[in-house]
Amino acid sequence: MNSPAYLELKRLVEEHLLDFLPEIDPMSRTLQESMSYSLSAGGKRIRPVLLLAACRLAGGDLAFALPFACAAEYIHTYSLIHDDLPSMDDDDLRRGKATNHIVYGEAMAILAGDGLLSAAYELMTKQMLMYLDDSLSLRRMAGACYELSKGSGVRGMIAGQVADIEAEGKDCSKEMLAFIHNNKTAALIKAVLLAGCTLGGGSASLREDLYFYGENVGLAFQIIDDILDITGDEAVLGKRIESDAQAGKATFPECFGLEDAKLKAAELLGEARERMLKYEDDAEIFTLLIDFLEGEIEQ
Amino acid sequence: MNSPAYLELKRLVEEHLLDFLPEIDPMSRTLQESMSYSLSAGGKRIRPVLLLAACRLAGGDLAFALPFACAAEYIHTYSLIHDDLPSMDDDDLRRGKATNHIVYGEAMAILAGDGLLSAAYELMTKQMLMYLDDSLSLRRMAGACYELSKGSGVRGMIAGQVADIEAEGKDCSKEMLAFIHNNKTAALIKAVLLAGCTLGGGSASLREDLYFYGENVGLAFQIIDDILDITGDEAVLGKRIESDAQAGKATFPECFGLEDAKLKAAELLGEARERMLKYEDDAEIFTLLIDFLEGEIEQ
Repeated sequence: MNSPAYLELKRLVEEHLLDFLPEIDPMSRTLQESMSYSLSAGGKRIRPVLLLAACRLAGGDLAFALPFACAAEYIHTYSLIHDDLPSMDDDDLRRGKATNHIVYGEAMAILAGDGLLSAAYELMTKQMLMYLDDSLSLRRMAGACYELSKGSGVRGMIAGQVADIEAEGKDCSKEMLAFIHNNKTAALIKAVLLAGCTLGGGSASLREDLYFYGENVGLAFQIIDDILDITGDEAVLGKRIESDAQAGKATFPECFGLEDAKLKAAELLGEARERMLKYEDDAEIFTLLIDFLEGEIEQ
Repeated sequence: MNSPAYLELKRLVEEHLLDFLPEIDPMSRTLQESMSYSLSAGGKRIRPVLLLAACRLAGGDLAFALPFACAAEYIHTYSLIHDDLPSMDDDDLRRGKATNHIVYGEAMAILAGDGLLSAAYELMTKQMLMYLDDSLSLRRMAGACYELSKGSGVRGMIAGQVADIEAEGKDCSKEMLAFIHNNKTAALIKAVLLAGCTLGGGSASLREDLYFYGENVGLAFQIIDDILDITGDEAVLGKRIESDAQAGKATFPECFGLEDAKLKAAELLGEARERMLKYEDDAEIFTLLIDFLEGEIEQ
């Protein structure tokens, strides 16, 4: 994740993340501050980077995909702000900083989340209006916007979050756990890959490969997140550990043990790596992410 | 609002409101229930009806605009669910029924709101995908989706909500009050009118007239809502009265007195009525809404 290839895309996202926000009236200045606070809190920017990488792998243009990459990060950031709320996961620390509601209060945190979600669609549809006379681009943008809405919506990320809450304190079944992981994390990761592929005009076979990669990496990502909640270092992670166990969350290590969780994550990543082999150096970003996640398992 | 012309459009919306929701997995059944609960809680359906009426006035097809009308109602409903939350307006009653978080808890209410907002865009972009080979329709849909995102986002409805919270307990200025009303309520009403006009391929002059109508009616609507919070009957309104005064909200009657508020609302409605005269019977829905609101002032 510190390789020049990854950092180039990450920098591109971070340079535009705040600029792409709609101009907000000074009368609602706190909203602007609250949204910017969470957008600027760092993070690996995995979702927007993957969207850009998928678009490029499909033969598309980075500048064309950039607003959609930033929109994906708005969506991811809104979900973090709402997840951290007292009535949800009740987290006070994220990426080493106080969570949004700790700084701005609950009402503003809810509105900042709503604002970021709305800003994502305002940005994407505004972009469409710039291509009204280019029906191929317009079609691709509509397709990408649909992928993101589906992956982050009630058949994706939100469904996973609901199931996660409902499973708290209950015996976890394999099916329930698979549903939670697949939706809570993998759905948005798959969506950014499909959105990038659509924007770049990728083939059906690339689409299938990216879907497979996204599902495997998304699941591994969530399992590793749950492993680190047990074995990790609070200072390194920038968030509280052991919060899952305290909340009685259904997690992979909780249900199948730590060692099996590590093996499962490694297996998923191995399959994803193999699937991308055929793209050789063009799949560098995808391989770098796998390298990084494999390193996290061993920590 | 009980006239056949209004009820016809309202029925059309209500017949499709739940059907247009994405199919939700049984694993997140409570989400489905929570979203449906608030969508089915009644209400006048002013926003989707206005969107349909604007599309028809522009010469467009109702069936083409219907998903966008329902999306507008999803957006409105999400905003009510979040506004009612304990950290926001803390309301336990809406349309004579317990508010969403009273029934489903805070976490589920936040997620139901997020889900409805996401579902609105999933519905609109899915609709676009059905018209990929019809670039005129696709352009109009992208335009309508942009209007709704802008009107309900951080330069519209959310900005108004933020300013409303920030003004609580402070001396209200005329500017702040205008900003709150214009954004909290009028922005989404203007947006549905412009979205309908765009979907129907309306002329620039119709667009201007609808914008004027939406601004006036939106402002009047908010002033009347604030008047009824003082003079209304809880049983008729289906929500708590005197909540604004208790919360120290900046409202028109609070700042300028009840009589001036009534006069202002009547003046705004009179101007809106005059503006739509030229459309004669084709503007029936628009006139009916003014009749209804004028009746509310006199109650």
